[in-house]
Amino acid sequence: MPGRMWKIAVTVLVPIALLLMPVPAGLTAGAWKLFALYMGAIFGIMLRPAPEPVVLLTVLSISSIYLGNIGVALSGYATTTAWLVFSAFMVGQAFADTGLGKRVAYILIGKMGRTTLGLGYVAALTDLIISPATPSNTARTGGLVYPIFQSLAVTMGSEPGPTARRIGSYLSLLLYQISLTTGGLFITALSTHALILSFAKSILKIEISWMQWAQATLVPGLLLLALVPYLVYKLYPPEIKQINNTEIASRGLAEMGPMSRQEKTLAVIFVLAIVGWATGNITKIDSTAVAIAFITACLVTGVVSWDSILRCKGAWSTFMWYGGIISLANGLSSAKFFAWFGSLLGKNISFAGYDTTMVLIGLLLLSLVVRYFFASQAAYVSTFIPVLFTLGLLAKVPVLVLAMLLGVSSVFGSMLTHYGNAVGPVLFGAGYVDQVTWWKIGTVICIVSAIVYTVIGLPYWKLIGLW
Amino acid sequence: MPGRMWKIAVTVLVPIALLLMPVPAGLTAGAWKLFALYMGAIFGIMLRPAPEPVVLLTVLSISSIYLGNIGVALSGYATTTAWLVFSAFMVGQAFADTGLGKRVAYILIGKMGRTTLGLGYVAALTDLIISPATPSNTARTGGLVYPIFQSLAVTMGSEPGPTARRIGSYLSLLLYQISLTTGGLFITALSTHALILSFAKSILKIEISWMQWAQATLVPGLLLLALVPYLVYKLYPPEIKQINNTEIASRGLAEMGPMSRQEKTLAVIFVLAIVGWATGNITKIDSTAVAIAFITACLVTGVVSWDSILRCKGAWSTFMWYGGIISLANGLSSAKFFAWFGSLLGKNISFAGYDTTMVLIGLLLLSLVVRYFFASQAAYVSTFIPVLFTLGLLAKVPVLVLAMLLGVSSVFGSMLTHYGNAVGPVLFGAGYVDQVTWWKIGTVICIVSAIVYTVIGLPYWKLIGLW
Repeated sequence: MPGRMWKIAVTVLVPIALLLMPVPAGLTAGAWKLFALYMGAIFGIMLRPAPEPVVLLTVLSISSIYLGNIGVALSGYATTTAWLVFSAFMVGQAFADTGLGKRVAYILIGKMGRTTLGLGYVAALTDLIISPATPSNTARTGGLVYPIFQSLAVTMGSEPGPTARRIGSYLSLLLYQISLTTGGLFITALSTHALILSFAKSILKIEISWMQWAQATLVPGLLLLALVPYLVYKLYPPEIKQINNTEIASRGLAEMGPMSRQEKTLAVIFVLAIVGWATGNITKIDSTAVAIAFITACLVTGVVSWDSILRCKGAWSTFMWYGGIISLANGLSSAKFFAWFGSLLGKNISFAGYDTTMVLIGLLLLSLVVRYFFASQAAYVSTFIPVLFTLGLLAKVPVLVLAMLLGVSSVFGSMLTHYGNAVGPVLFGAGYVDQVTWWKIGTVICIVSAIVYTVIGLPYWKLIGLW
Repeated sequence: MPGRMWKIAVTVLVPIALLLMPVPAGLTAGAWKLFALYMGAIFGIMLRPAPEPVVLLTVLSISSIYLGNIGVALSGYATTTAWLVFSAFMVGQAFADTGLGKRVAYILIGKMGRTTLGLGYVAALTDLIISPATPSNTARTGGLVYPIFQSLAVTMGSEPGPTARRIGSYLSLLLYQISLTTGGLFITALSTHALILSFAKSILKIEISWMQWAQATLVPGLLLLALVPYLVYKLYPPEIKQINNTEIASRGLAEMGPMSRQEKTLAVIFVLAIVGWATGNITKIDSTAVAIAFITACLVTGVVSWDSILRCKGAWSTFMWYGGIISLANGLSSAKFFAWFGSLLGKNISFAGYDTTMVLIGLLLLSLVVRYFFASQAAYVSTFIPVLFTLGLLAKVPVLVLAMLLGVSSVFGSMLTHYGNAVGPVLFGAGYVDQVTWWKIGTVICIVSAIVYTVIGLPYWKLIGLW
């Protein structure tokens, strides 16, 4: 059977098999059927017999015809989580369109890029600066930051093959680790966080604000970001140590010309958006409202055109399938599926006698081990986060801490493989680094991340009152 | 002041002026503020200082920050009305992509196009056949049907200028009238019907199914469609009377080659969708669910690709701004704005002593007269339909009849001008017909439509139990 046929078969047969099984006791038939369709969606996302939006629209149309629940099927498209990702996605387009991201990189190279290690920090800082407004880390790191540094590598005579180790392999591997560190810092720095928020709401019954998340990752996350370039530099040293940074920077900036009105406007709007997100707890302005205002301001001031937004296919595709999966998760939640699942687990698993911290660490380890089996971060989040959240609920761990710990581990867990996050294929695919090295260094940085978030993060979260 | 500045000024100043006015008695401050923003959106749609989606996203972001109502602001994007238009819009893409629409036209030309009058009926029939699945009548008539007939005109030596009257001017004018006749027949034949359904729900508190609508237009609508080609032929006769239709058809079909697998599949899915819509009252399958299933089936069977859907910019733009305007209308409704508006009108207007039919005819005439002031159908529907619905409610006319009569008049009212509907600029802009003729013939056909819908329609609606 050809590859695609096989994928279609699995995606179709899994829900059919579930539907043929008797409805488990304690669950309504409707909830079970919806769960079967949900599993079809998950297998569809994992195996990708068709693009994700097609998978989700198919499941939604089956659900709304077979279960008569069109209201539920569309509900995700009006959620703030789907819109947060969607609108921030379009903002990423503005950074690319105006060239502001590139300019930031060159300015930093001029100031801090004298050594290869310094260049690593420049990469980290550039990615960090634009991360609050680019939830597609593939667009951010793969589309914006990496091309700048890759072209630097080529300029310095480092290409895939014998010259890879001069500097290109170091930068490729490092940017993957950086992307998966900055991705943990803000809700708006990674698209799958929208799903995590959605599950946090439906399963843990909590809402996490933009600022709460940023505050929780501030200390452990920034510490990690400071460690990562140094660690990769030591573990996987580049041959080139010194860089003619002032020349590179001045040539790059000269090529770009003076800062355009669009770039300046975007910089101002960007700062306002960060302020808006950061002060949301005080002003009570919803973070999604800020994100929509951000893109609206870009449109009204001519920083981006509506037509360039329409061409931003990633934003539309993501909106279509995130909205759909959120609809299904909402539906499962209101059909009391997760409550039933929790009580099922509760009958078979007991956390009695275990310390809260031990349980949290156990769940963290579990969240990492399973990552080898998930070919995408979204597949992991939409399948396994509900399980982990339910387990945590059973063990009565503090829900905010649980959500944050699994939130950041959903990102750094991707370090273990080259397929864990969608930016992997871009950076690994550039061909500078072999798979064994990629996995080895990734495992080390992942373990360091886990240690920082438990040894520093957990006490810090106690300090700031998350538990 | 340059044109755009002036438009921006009006769009911004109207809501500001409303906000500065004291809140009318009987209305909450929140409802009044939302109404001010709604009027900003309406002026934005009418004057178009920026594309409609930009206008709506701006209003939504202001609303969700200023009024703190992000939930309301996004609510429209989960409504079945917004999705009905959105998904059926994408289906239109399938008709264009596969060439099925073109093939239907050539087959009909071969069978019925021996005379110019016959050709007019072919145009009507082609437009009718694809109308249930193409809510953008601009895409249907302007993008698909008209180009076929325009190229026929050119082939027969009829171009704008001295040769226009040979046949091109007849076809251009006729197709406008046809498009605005078929557009009234189905909910899915015109995008603004989604807004009408939305107001019917929020103001009149009724839901109209696809089948109910189609049943209500069946007799008067098809009668009109049968009359229109004949009337235009008599009022505005083309010089060419006979057509070498068999040669045109066989050459056209030969050029297209044999029917592709995609065309055949689309034809089957199309028939299934029509059956789905038509039997919705019995099967209880929501018409939006059918529309989503339609596009899903096209995607899964490879009739259209997801990428071609992503390129269908009209669908995305329409979804963005229809969703937004539905959100605002929902918000006004739940803030009891329309109820307040009704009681306000009730204090000043009395329908006591007037016959129901007279009131209906009065409202119909009012709906037509105002059309000269609206530069687009959407602007008319989103501003004036709520007023007319509220008046009808006050006069206690049967709400289903009211909704249907104003629903169809929203379409044939566009005949009065060349800017009344978005397909106007395409057909009028082709340059075959002068403005005076366009308005003159349009007025006649519009009056005939009004007569048919009152003299035949109203008794027929009584017969089928709409009142």
